[in-house]
Amino acid sequence: MKNRVTETFGIELPIIAGGMVWCSGWELASAVSNAGGLGLLGAGSMTPEILAEHIEKTRAVTSRPFGVNVPLMKPDAPKLMEVIAEKKVPVVFTSAGSPKKWTSWLHERGIKVAHVVASSKFAAKCEEAGVDAVVAEGFEAGGHNGREETTTLCLIPAVRRATSLPLIAAGGIATGEAMLAVQALGAEGVQIGTLFALTQESSASEAFKRRCLQLNEGDTKLLLRKLSPTRLVRGGFFDAIEAAENRGATGDELLEIIGTGKSRLGIFEGDLENGELEIGQVASLMCDSEIEPVEKVVKRLVDEYRNALSKLTANN
Amino acid sequence: MKNRVTETFGIELPIIAGGMVWCSGWELASAVSNAGGLGLLGAGSMTPEILAEHIEKTRAVTSRPFGVNVPLMKPDAPKLMEVIAEKKVPVVFTSAGSPKKWTSWLHERGIKVAHVVASSKFAAKCEEAGVDAVVAEGFEAGGHNGREETTTLCLIPAVRRATSLPLIAAGGIATGEAMLAVQALGAEGVQIGTLFALTQESSASEAFKRRCLQLNEGDTKLLLRKLSPTRLVRGGFFDAIEAAENRGATGDELLEIIGTGKSRLGIFEGDLENGELEIGQVASLMCDSEIEPVEKVVKRLVDEYRNALSKLTANN
Repeated sequence: MKNRVTETFGIELPIIAGGMVWCSGWELASAVSNAGGLGLLGAGSMTPEILAEHIEKTRAVTSRPFGVNVPLMKPDAPKLMEVIAEKKVPVVFTSAGSPKKWTSWLHERGIKVAHVVASSKFAAKCEEAGVDAVVAEGFEAGGHNGREETTTLCLIPAVRRATSLPLIAAGGIATGEAMLAVQALGAEGVQIGTLFALTQESSASEAFKRRCLQLNEGDTKLLLRKLSPTRLVRGGFFDAIEAAENRGATGDELLEIIGTGKSRLGIFEGDLENGELEIGQVASLMCDSEIEPVEKVVKRLVDEYRNALSKLTANN
Repeated sequence: MKNRVTETFGIELPIIAGGMVWCSGWELASAVSNAGGLGLLGAGSMTPEILAEHIEKTRAVTSRPFGVNVPLMKPDAPKLMEVIAEKKVPVVFTSAGSPKKWTSWLHERGIKVAHVVASSKFAAKCEEAGVDAVVAEGFEAGGHNGREETTTLCLIPAVRRATSLPLIAAGGIATGEAMLAVQALGAEGVQIGTLFALTQESSASEAFKRRCLQLNEGDTKLLLRKLSPTRLVRGGFFDAIEAAENRGATGDELLEIIGTGKSRLGIFEGDLENGELEIGQVASLMCDSEIEPVEKVVKRLVDEYRNALSKLTANN
């Protein structure tokens, strides 16, 4: 499973754990890195001080490469970047902004950069910006999402044509079969969110994890198109947003319903009724699963991938 | 490429051309069957008399198996079925209704039956109904779509678990790489719409085909969730629906905007401004392609599939 993605980041397996708000703390990031993948800290829900603490704790329990995901629209992104550089984190995944903004700055400090996109247009901009790898994330993904609503199956081949960069597929990938499928489409690695958000090491509340492991098909939907399209899990918060959208609520009216601190309330504190719950569509494929440790999950991914490859070869 | 799908329908390649309204007449169906796949007539836009004519014309130019797609919510579905039985069509693909309704009736007449679903729940119902194969169609697909909005990448593994029936993947498949990808997920064949809708043999207007070959990512969207979710192409009709939905229009108000005969107007007559244009999301991957003959398209699919398989094997 060695390729340009594993070489770029100095890892064993081309499996990256998405840096998810309220899920991706030091426990999850270090567990994924220790299992041979690349763990990312989710700075989207961290202050610079908290991020510094999580970087230190990650480093204390793994000697392997790890990274930080920084949503560039976050007002304190510059301070987060300073912490990352000061602490000599080897990898940064940027999202929700222009890849031109930070790539050179990070490269000057010896830090590898991947940028998350949802279209081939932005993938081409990544190449211009000189990033080391591009993550193409489809409509299936949880949380914030692209306006084009392009699914992973349609997006990966489009991004593959648009850039020669190492390509990491994201959105809808929770099995080794799906890893093989996106490889057939031209991806060289995967960024996995949902599956890792629901492991033992994820810092999400147990209530959130249990709820997400009981979802049926159709229990997550992309809403908030008038603001920033976001995939949410059904529940009180979801219902309020959906009802408002159905009656034609404006962006401002939606902002008022959303209020502040709702993703912390839902994901971290486990208030399933009033909180904002974000997970990928693929959660329904994990319905009735246990909350498992990362090591077991990564081993299964690799086994599934190898078995699927053998089967595909034998059938052809 | 022989498997349960090719055996079930007596065809060479596990490639089925979706029976699409205003696209899938005798020219397209016979061309796909003659190329080794399974061509379907789209009875959704045909009267029983017109269907009878298309069956005769198909049979006049191919001795290979072909079929008819019958949307079961169509008021004249019983009459269409009578025509199909009378003309001894070997295969029927049913959609938009219960698979229990017609399967036995068709089987008694020696006709093979596949049913189209958008969820694993309905796939299980297909197995109970005794259909010969199930088509699982994801969110990417053009036209009418499932309420769950499950993408092909998430849907195929779910349906694969829910049924042991021969499984045909649909939605987002326009290349041999995508054929290989859905095979990795457990599919044994593909139903392809968009790619065939834009061939020379499709009965859609040239204006429609040319417009669909100029789409960028994000130029089709799923709208009409308050009625029957439908993937539409941007244009005057799309804009009117989208604007109405954004201001909270009810289902009745949307019905009034839609009026009647709009898909014929858009797809068949080529009125890109006032007509309803339906195509899959994957059209953007075909941007700037030529309008090609079916034979060339099918040959390319097979070549791409074989090359992708060799590449996947060599890289592992």
